[in-house]
Amino acid sequence: MNKTLAELAQHVGGTVVGDSQVIIEKVASIDEAGAGAITFLANPRYRRYLSVCRASAVIVGMDVVRGLPLRDGKGYLAASDPYVAFAKILKLFHDSPRFSRTVSSFAHVDPAADLGEAVTIFPHAYVSGGVKIGRRTVVFPGVFLGEGSEVGEDCVLHPNVVVCAGCRLGNRVILHAGVVIGSDGFGYAGQGEGRVKIPQIGIVVVEDDVEIGANTTVDRATIGRTVIGRGAKIDNLVQIAHNVVIGEYSVIAAQVGIAGSTRIGKNVTLAGQVGIVNHIQVGDGATIGPQSGIAQSVTPGAVLSSGIPAAPHREWLKVMTLLPRLPKLWHAVRGLEKKLFEIDKRESSKL
Amino acid sequence: MNKTLAELAQHVGGTVVGDSQVIIEKVASIDEAGAGAITFLANPRYRRYLSVCRASAVIVGMDVVRGLPLRDGKGYLAASDPYVAFAKILKLFHDSPRFSRTVSSFAHVDPAADLGEAVTIFPHAYVSGGVKIGRRTVVFPGVFLGEGSEVGEDCVLHPNVVVCAGCRLGNRVILHAGVVIGSDGFGYAGQGEGRVKIPQIGIVVVEDDVEIGANTTVDRATIGRTVIGRGAKIDNLVQIAHNVVIGEYSVIAAQVGIAGSTRIGKNVTLAGQVGIVNHIQVGDGATIGPQSGIAQSVTPGAVLSSGIPAAPHREWLKVMTLLPRLPKLWHAVRGLEKKLFEIDKRESSKL
Amino acid sequence: MNKTLAELAQHVGGTVVGDSQVIIEKVASIDEAGAGAITFLANPRYRRYLSVCRASAVIVGMDVVRGLPLRDGKGYLAASDPYVAFAKILKLFHDSPRFSRTVSSFAHVDPAADLGEAVTIFPHAYVSGGVKIGRRTVVFPGVFLGEGSEVGEDCVLHPNVVVCAGCRLGNRVILHAGVVIGSDGFGYAGQGEGRVKIPQIGIVVVEDDVEIGANTTVDRATIGRTVIGRGAKIDNLVQIAHNVVIGEYSVIAAQVGIAGSTRIGKNVTLAGQVGIVNHIQVGDGATIGPQSGIAQSVTPGAVLSSGIPAAPHREWLKVMTLLPRLPKLWHAVRGLEKKLFEIDKRESSKL
Repeated sequence: MNKTLAELAQHVGGTVVGDSQVIIEKVASIDEAGAGAITFLANPRYRRYLSVCRASAVIVGMDVVRGLPLRDGKGYLAASDPYVAFAKILKLFHDSPRFSRTVSSFAHVDPAADLGEAVTIFPHAYVSGGVKIGRRTVVFPGVFLGEGSEVGEDCVLHPNVVVCAGCRLGNRVILHAGVVIGSDGFGYAGQGEGRVKIPQIGIVVVEDDVEIGANTTVDRATIGRTVIGRGAKIDNLVQIAHNVVIGEYSVIAAQVGIAGSTRIGKNVTLAGQVGIVNHIQVGDGATIGPQSGIAQSVTPGAVLSSGIPAAPHREWLKVMTLLPRLPKLWHAVRGLEKKLFEIDKRESSKL
Repeated sequence: MNKTLAELAQHVGGTVVGDSQVIIEKVASIDEAGAGAITFLANPRYRRYLSVCRASAVIVGMDVVRGLPLRDGKGYLAASDPYVAFAKILKLFHDSPRFSRTVSSFAHVDPAADLGEAVTIFPHAYVSGGVKIGRRTVVFPGVFLGEGSEVGEDCVLHPNVVVCAGCRLGNRVILHAGVVIGSDGFGYAGQGEGRVKIPQIGIVVVEDDVEIGANTTVDRATIGRTVIGRGAKIDNLVQIAHNVVIGEYSVIAAQVGIAGSTRIGKNVTLAGQVGIVNHIQVGDGATIGPQSGIAQSVTPGAVLSSGIPAAPHREWLKVMTLLPRLPKLWHAVRGLEKKLFEIDKRESSKL
Repeated sequence: MNKTLAELAQHVGGTVVGDSQVIIEKVASIDEAGAGAITFLANPRYRRYLSVCRASAVIVGMDVVRGLPLRDGKGYLAASDPYVAFAKILKLFHDSPRFSRTVSSFAHVDPAADLGEAVTIFPHAYVSGGVKIGRRTVVFPGVFLGEGSEVGEDCVLHPNVVVCAGCRLGNRVILHAGVVIGSDGFGYAGQGEGRVKIPQIGIVVVEDDVEIGANTTVDRATIGRTVIGRGAKIDNLVQIAHNVVIGEYSVIAAQVGIAGSTRIGKNVTLAGQVGIVNHIQVGDGATIGPQSGIAQSVTPGAVLSSGIPAAPHREWLKVMTLLPRLPKLWHAVRGLEKKLFEIDKRESSKL
């Protein structure tokens, strides 16, 4: 596919600075882009790359395009959100894979399953009784859809995804390979030999436009629902426990763990490896830094963190040793303050 | 199914306070329960919900039932362990899924496999030679049972579970979707190009009544056995390395990692995202808080933690910056103490 | 198989101390080894086990063999790197599993796939069009190979491994059960409802001699390649984000997470549960301690850590409470120093 830079600018609602008729054939990274390629200045910090960049065009922010050097037969595509423009152009040049729109005879599809038009079911998929699958949805090999589960339209369930009985996915949901939706929540009553499993009879509801990364697990509710809200994006190897609710458009990075019944608000951002205890609320728009531990409810819009950046090991050993002595240190300082106060008092009394 | 509250009380060994003849048809969460439903006061903190709760009955602790308001046509089921009572009633109302008790012709079952009575093998399961499967065990689609592996009676292996060659599961073991039992331990000798893989020729033994969460991994021993002790409960995305031993009835929350050859005692509780180094012992009954790092052996019954709850990011930045200077701070305080001691001495000498 | 200790010593380039003609039939762990077994003293700390060890032979380091007691009909195999010697002997005694070297008619293999000699494809594997598989490679049940993906020679893809479209594996690559190679990177532009997915059109390249642990996920590049360098060893449940590059012979322990576009050098060691932010470099030969957070680029050879070993919970609660007050403490100490300096000055002025 060939497009002029002007055509691309129109496609994304941006403006051209430089040669608007240069022909673009592909998208490439800034260090690999050559003639015919459009690339993307992800970060103004990388501006120095521009001088050696051989791309025919570069997508940049409206605010940075002014100061940039102009070169013959090349141009910039300036956009208010250059990252969105990049995504749109990448989509334009990227052939979506085509699917057969048929049901493989090597898949197991229960006669009582209800399949929409143009659904693709690959070999070795397993579709239980009572399952509903919406139009144009793609079910890759090794996918398991449990009894009575529902999948909306235009979904993609990548290989070896498991959706357990009764769980429901909205439209345009993408589940990457190995995702498990609706495994039993981790619930027991009693202790030791007397411990009994609490049946997990709830479901998981995954709303429209959600994308979930490879090998992430979402447990079914004990009773009721575990909910992944509309437009939420969840990365790989994340753990979502029973009865958790993730608000709309929240973004959860890899290896985060959220314990049972906790409610995450809308537009929340959780960085990688964050851990959140059970039965709390994280308010709308909150942002939590990487590796942080969240032990109490978080107010809307809060920006929290508790991650500790690594230090040279020998120095850190000393810090580690002193940390448990922090209360002692605190008392020592309080003692010194008191003593100094007394010295001061004595001195003043002498005057 | 309909039961009177009196019947339910008898089933769980509890007592009714209020209307013992009210009819219960289902179990529901406290905020969703209506007429005909029994619910559960999980936490005395939630007592305020009771005034607006429309459930026909509420399971409560013996100790809290006294102070609660009584309403016509409604009742409380008071139990010594209300959580256990809840689990039992939930089980009563929850239809266990029924299985075909047959071996699908679309499964691969080696002729040399030994299958007990009433075993269910779903399509696309793979049962290798020398495998033994006990009575009534259910093997879902996509499950792989390696050469010579053994599965006891009344087990449930959810979709895409992998049990590698030679590993052994006891009775009533539940493995949730994507669990891997018996992958190679992470063992190498030498460095760089000279690094060689240490063959991992041991097995994993999973004892009776163990339940393991989705996508958790348990590595086979280098030599000998990795053991998950009787009644242990392990959550999702947990990593158990080679030659680890987990004691009976221990409970391990999501995303915990336990390094090689470490021995976890009985009735140990590990909260989410805990990391434990290799070659140590964690004593019976120990409890480890979320995100903690365990670098040394832990005495029985110890209650340890090292997780840090998140603080406002700007404030935490300051803390983070000062942490590496903790040794300097410590010395400064020591210096001040010394100086003050000298001043004191001088002052006394002046008297 | 029977070997004399002398033969084993020759096999690994070591020397015998004691009875060189003792017959060895198997390898066993030091606490389980009996007559006919060779075992391994992993750590000089465990020397005390030797007095009760009933093994016919023990592999030890050249440097420790001298002080050890000699017993009739038994011997030591002393090697410069005893761990490597152990690995080699274990390999000698360990029968590699034999495979059918055929393609199962219950696998799905696209006619346009290109399979090398003696390839083994198990039932329920899925091989897409345009796939290339090198000689003697083994593809277990439930494995998915996407359109145009390539797998080298002598690889082993364990059950339920997923290699997405276009990704490439070198020779002698081992992927353990549930590994996902080439899932979409976690990339979006814009916010809330306006958020759009950035197509992930790059690939993953896994070079020769790489081994990757169970349920680990490696995302494809947005554009270009995510690279796992030659000889790298990656443990279970690790997350490698898009465009990450792992250098040759690096070793990454379980549950590590590496964010997008970060470059890990050669011979780097990352301990368990380490988290590394995006767009940084970790220099060759660096070592990062368990649970550490890496927020900035790391110089070659650096040894860093930020993990905190757990303390008794009650004591840790006090530390946790004081941590946010560390800046206040710091200022208090600065204030005290100033005050003492003034007292000192006043005192000297009085003299």
